[in-house]
Amino acid sequence: RYGYFGEANPEVVRLMFCNVSGCLTEGRIYLSKSGEQMVSVNTRDTAGIRMLQRENTEVVLLTSALDSVGRSLADRVAEVTGCQVVEVGAEPLKELKPMVEAKKLGWKDVAFMGCDMPDVGCLNLAGLSAVPHDAPSVAINAAKYICRSGGGAGAVREFAEHILLQKEKAKARRRSTDSV
Amino acid sequence: RYGYFGEANPEVVRLMFCNVSGCLTEGRIYLSKSGEQMVSVNTRDTAGIRMLQRENTEVVLLTSALDSVGRSLADRVAEVTGCQVVEVGAEPLKELKPMVEAKKLGWKDVAFMGCDMPDVGCLNLAGLSAVPHDAPSVAINAAKYICRSGGGAGAVREFAEHILLQKEKAKARRRSTDSV
Amino acid sequence: RYGYFGEANPEVVRLMFCNVSGCLTEGRIYLSKSGEQMVSVNTRDTAGIRMLQRENTEVVLLTSALDSVGRSLADRVAEVTGCQVVEVGAEPLKELKPMVEAKKLGWKDVAFMGCDMPDVGCLNLAGLSAVPHDAPSVAINAAKYICRSGGGAGAVREFAEHILLQKEKAKARRRSTDSV
Amino acid sequence: RYGYFGEANPEVVRLMFCNVSGCLTEGRIYLSKSGEQMVSVNTRDTAGIRMLQRENTEVVLLTSALDSVGRSLADRVAEVTGCQVVEVGAEPLKELKPMVEAKKLGWKDVAFMGCDMPDVGCLNLAGLSAVPHDAPSVAINAAKYICRSGGGAGAVREFAEHILLQKEKAKARRRSTDSV
Repeated sequence: RYGYFGEANPEVVRLMFCNVSGCLTEGRIYLSKSGEQMVSVNTRDTAGIRMLQRENTEVVLLTSALDSVGRSLADRVAEVTGCQVVEVGAEPLKELKPMVEAKKLGWKDVAFMGCDMPDVGCLNLAGLSAVPHDAPSVAINAAKYICRSGGGAGAVREFAEHILLQKEKAKARRRSTDSV
Repeated sequence: RYGYFGEANPEVVRLMFCNVSGCLTEGRIYLSKSGEQMVSVNTRDTAGIRMLQRENTEVVLLTSALDSVGRSLADRVAEVTGCQVVEVGAEPLKELKPMVEAKKLGWKDVAFMGCDMPDVGCLNLAGLSAVPHDAPSVAINAAKYICRSGGGAGAVREFAEHILLQKEKAKARRRSTDSV
Repeated sequence: RYGYFGEANPEVVRLMFCNVSGCLTEGRIYLSKSGEQMVSVNTRDTAGIRMLQRENTEVVLLTSALDSVGRSLADRVAEVTGCQVVEVGAEPLKELKPMVEAKKLGWKDVAFMGCDMPDVGCLNLAGLSAVPHDAPSVAINAAKYICRSGGGAGAVREFAEHILLQKEKAKARRRSTDSV
Repeated sequence: RYGYFGEANPEVVRLMFCNVSGCLTEGRIYLSKSGEQMVSVNTRDTAGIRMLQRENTEVVLLTSALDSVGRSLADRVAEVTGCQVVEVGAEPLKELKPMVEAKKLGWKDVAFMGCDMPDVGCLNLAGLSAVPHDAPSVAINAAKYICRSGGGAGAVREFAEHILLQKEKAKARRRSTDSV
């Protein structure tokens, strides 16, 4: 295999992976005396996810056992966003590679949003990749796009708008090529 | 129909619509493991709403199914603010137009505070309109007034003071015209 | 009555009044679907209160029916801070004046921390008065000291340090006068 | 006793003490009407703690009765971070000195992260010490390293990276000395 797997339109992202902790949330977990746990998500970001879904980009959320966001909390986030949530380990590529291949996509067609060291591999590989502006520098150095917004404060929305703009541009390019 | 419907005093706003998510709250929804949901409102903003109510401006809060702020959560906000809460869809104008007409008001007499794409129609139409400073640019471009404060952090209060200042100015103008 | 009522040492504050909403908290109230309510207080601020208590300055917290911080929530804040909580109305002077007189203090010996329009009277009257930096301008204009910190984020601590510094200075002045 | 107790490799920190309130959390305690209490921790900071643990640095969390973070709340934080939590009083040195000696370490081998007046003694004594950038100046003046991040917002992670960098440097120095 060489070249782009999704060759016809490499910039037209069909799948986006997005960390829950630190991207969709600010990375905070609220812990209560009685054992309850909470995270917060931002309407602006969930609106960004819906914008992608309407343009036929599937959004898959990622949680890690290391994030302390347990399964039941991740399920609440899944309900609110209407996204599938996938649990990844210390190297998310291991879980995501089979998913990308099963969907017959190349990494060029994948957008990835992460915020820390374990995400570096995917940030490098994905056609479009982003981090919130408050991510540690190890993640910032690997990302292709650095959001002006922080995690849980509009970063996902900002990346969604960036992806949709690339889609528009790719469509415009194809139209002008077709008309030649 | 032409001219101002509420012709006599166009700048004297009698009705204000205000988004709950992103205007009265910071747009965050707190999700708990056990299924509980929370939003936060700011005393400064609820004080701003009371300032408008005292000057005979009715404040109606808007929620959208898309905001993930469900009915029961919206009712809690209604209790704290003493405002009616109306549920709107993807195009809020559809629900709000009949309300404005039933109250025999023109859009010139209406103030509108929104924070995202679905609000653009109302932001353009209302006599006075505002967005929090952290709104996406699509909403900022449609608003007549851009608050220095963010959503859930004083933006509603700031717009309330702006509205009351316009009311004062309109009164002063009428007085000076009457005395001629 | 003329001159300072607490004449001997006017700058030695023996009593501090402090708003709960917007001074000790950031002014946010968290509302849940099930009817629960939350506020947050900052360790730095409660440490500031303890610093004052150790130097024999009583700290009395104020809540207002208008703040939406109900009695039971105010009681939780009282537990954590070890302070008495007093409920005031639209004009706090009405409730506080009898308290100041009962303690045989003059307003010169009182410190007041507020954050909005109803506090203006007390901010003007108190010997030392402060607002958090994020207070509306009507309150900022009436205060003698404007904190660099915001409400719920160290403003009470900052004012406590300011008060203790004034106490130190007054003691130093008295010592140098006594030694003449 | 003179010189370094852990003489062989003074910069190789084997133990880190870290305040819960104001370092691992932003210092906020959420109080509910019904008596529930919450704090929040940041994924980035818990990841920093794991980075230290992987490099054989034990992390011990400190709470104080003065912080209002009660035992049950501290236990929740312990679960999420996998750290031991020790309760200290007004002078943490009293509880920590026997711990350091029992582990046969010198203070040169200890890292300490604090954020207020009671921490000054330990901040001065520890080989490496840090405060979040939003700490009161009394603590900032005693710390050897001032984080760019605030408490509960990455300060612990930043200090963890600083410690690991010092470890790397110390190893490199030893290697170059050995090879001479």
